[in-house]
Amino acid sequence: MYNQRYESGLEKLKEIDGEVGQKVIDSLASISPDLAKYTIEFAFGDIYQRPGLDLKSRELATVAALTALGNCQPQLNVHINGALNVGCKPEEIVEVIVQMAVYAGFPASLNGMFVAKEVFVERAIIKV
Amino acid sequence: MYNQRYESGLEKLKEIDGEVGQKVIDSLASISPDLAKYTIEFAFGDIYQRPGLDLKSRELATVAALTALGNCQPQLNVHINGALNVGCKPEEIVEVIVQMAVYAGFPASLNGMFVAKEVFVERAIIKV
Amino acid sequence: MYNQRYESGLEKLKEIDGEVGQKVIDSLASISPDLAKYTIEFAFGDIYQRPGLDLKSRELATVAALTALGNCQPQLNVHINGALNVGCKPEEIVEVIVQMAVYAGFPASLNGMFVAKEVFVERAIIKV
Amino acid sequence: MYNQRYESGLEKLKEIDGEVGQKVIDSLASISPDLAKYTIEFAFGDIYQRPGLDLKSRELATVAALTALGNCQPQLNVHINGALNVGCKPEEIVEVIVQMAVYAGFPASLNGMFVAKEVFVERAIIKV
Amino acid sequence: MYNQRYESGLEKLKEIDGEVGQKVIDSLASISPDLAKYTIEFAFGDIYQRPGLDLKSRELATVAALTALGNCQPQLNVHINGALNVGCKPEEIVEVIVQMAVYAGFPASLNGMFVAKEVFVERAIIKV
Amino acid sequence: MYNQRYESGLEKLKEIDGEVGQKVIDSLASISPDLAKYTIEFAFGDIYQRPGLDLKSRELATVAALTALGNCQPQLNVHINGALNVGCKPEEIVEVIVQMAVYAGFPASLNGMFVAKEVFVERAIIKV
Repeated sequence: MYNQRYESGLEKLKEIDGEVGQKVIDSLASISPDLAKYTIEFAFGDIYQRPGLDLKSRELATVAALTALGNCQPQLNVHINGALNVGCKPEEIVEVIVQMAVYAGFPASLNGMFVAKEVFVERAIIKV
Repeated sequence: MYNQRYESGLEKLKEIDGEVGQKVIDSLASISPDLAKYTIEFAFGDIYQRPGLDLKSRELATVAALTALGNCQPQLNVHINGALNVGCKPEEIVEVIVQMAVYAGFPASLNGMFVAKEVFVERAIIKV
Repeated sequence: MYNQRYESGLEKLKEIDGEVGQKVIDSLASISPDLAKYTIEFAFGDIYQRPGLDLKSRELATVAALTALGNCQPQLNVHINGALNVGCKPEEIVEVIVQMAVYAGFPASLNGMFVAKEVFVERAIIKV
Repeated sequence: MYNQRYESGLEKLKEIDGEVGQKVIDSLASISPDLAKYTIEFAFGDIYQRPGLDLKSRELATVAALTALGNCQPQLNVHINGALNVGCKPEEIVEVIVQMAVYAGFPASLNGMFVAKEVFVERAIIKV
Repeated sequence: MYNQRYESGLEKLKEIDGEVGQKVIDSLASISPDLAKYTIEFAFGDIYQRPGLDLKSRELATVAALTALGNCQPQLNVHINGALNVGCKPEEIVEVIVQMAVYAGFPASLNGMFVAKEVFVERAIIKV
Repeated sequence: MYNQRYESGLEKLKEIDGEVGQKVIDSLASISPDLAKYTIEFAFGDIYQRPGLDLKSRELATVAALTALGNCQPQLNVHINGALNVGCKPEEIVEVIVQMAVYAGFPASLNGMFVAKEVFVERAIIKV
């Protein structure tokens, strides 16, 4: 029943986010499984499949955008994890978030950094 | 009178944006030369000087953020030019802007792409 | 002392939100009763009284806007409840929130859906 | 080469927006035909095909969101036209935009109304 | 037919914005005279009438907010004029806009400053 | 090693925010001490040192902007405290936040007011 975009999207989601893919599907199952399906098909089956930009650059661009938007902290947590999973260095993630102070202001940058701190502590990259 | 942060910021601004540095200074001269000074000192003298992330990745992160924020089109124009100047390929810029459809919605992505189109036409990368 | 706009606004607020009207008034009593008063007078005494658009369409428009804005989760909770109270079907609310993925991006849509899930679980429309 | 989602999306886009569909495709042809393709496939081939909410309510929800976001005026123009094309009354569109003053502030509402005025004048619904 | 809030709002609007009051009313006359009415009643008849904060501080707060929001340039133009009309010094307005670089980023601050420059040139406070 | 901007910024931060300055430094120590350093140098060493606008007006402008942006609640808490510390009256802060209903909508104003309520209760200005 599910199509090729879904299948390759799910695989890409696992490559980037590990277990999180299944969690997204599960958390939406009772209310809108289709929103999970679209997330997988469009974000991971269409966009993250595209050539022309490597996965590390894609994840850094996403960290930049979610930090700047400032109201997407659950997704920022997921994508900081994703960035680390595909090989971004912690310093690169920190650099992108610091840089957002220029474009979106210090509150956005600080709030993004506190999300990164949470992730880095969970993954024992830094101590509290 | 100007300090080292200003001097190295101005140099970095020229490296990234060519003539635009002087234009920013000039356009603010009659109202707030200090805002030009801070832009140069903080953005280009502090942030863009930092090791830990190469200039191409910095410019792609900026293109991502400005596209997502959606109300910074003059700055997006400047930074798409900057991204090209420091060696980003046109396809990489297009990829970042397309990807923003996922995180900030299609209107933000479309409006960012029309700014890129303007820049690419000016630089004869594409024809109208 | 209170005027006709306030009286009819309070009545409309009760029609839409049940007990929430009194809670808003109470929660602001110690700091800014006037902000409660303006909310009731302007939002519910002026706007929601207007002919030309039925209450269900008004509530769906509000759910759309609050989901897209992305930083108004307490108000989104109130208005998802309000939408149900005035006769919107759960599926209609879900549809509006899914649609916001197109205009405001997937994070806004996902975060809005998790607010809807909370409300739907509280009201036993779905199970966790 | 294009799939069923694209074909039905294009048809839906024509139903809603008339000639605008082809204009979007054309305007992106030289820089990112894929962004046009995704807009058609995802927005119009997936979302606007869904049962559970009628087209008129979908368009009013979109007008609400684009007015509230405040930085999507070209898309707001398109969707005010779309709303009229699928049978929304001018008054209903005006009502949604007025209501946004409550949720996104008067500037967003006023700027949205000026876009509506432009569309209504073009379509001779009102005189300047 | 119009009430006391409208009358005192209109007077306050004239005190702050001079001729602009009538222009707002006129520009909305053909599409939504009620939105003009609410702007006058609520913004100028309720809020700007309140004791507890002087008009100069109110206008500086508005300039801060509109600069930070970044997508309200017509309203920012009006309120920079209003701030000058009620006695704010040009330097105070410039200071507020510069300060927004900290909270909303440099693009918002720069774009706000270019609106101020326009107003200051029109009023011959500065030369181009 | 730290420069004069840092030293005077730290002093200003203590004047405005009391103990919070050291907390910001500490909370970022393990992940990005430079972001703390830039906050102190640029925000408090450059901007808040400037003549041309008194500290009370600066803090009210910041409260306005952070309320309007709507996704900076930790920073809004800090600056409502800061505003009180530099001599703003509670009523003035409340007035600025109420006024934001006009420019950023009622949800932003309400959410800002609830942050103020938290601060006012902590400081025993009001009772719960």
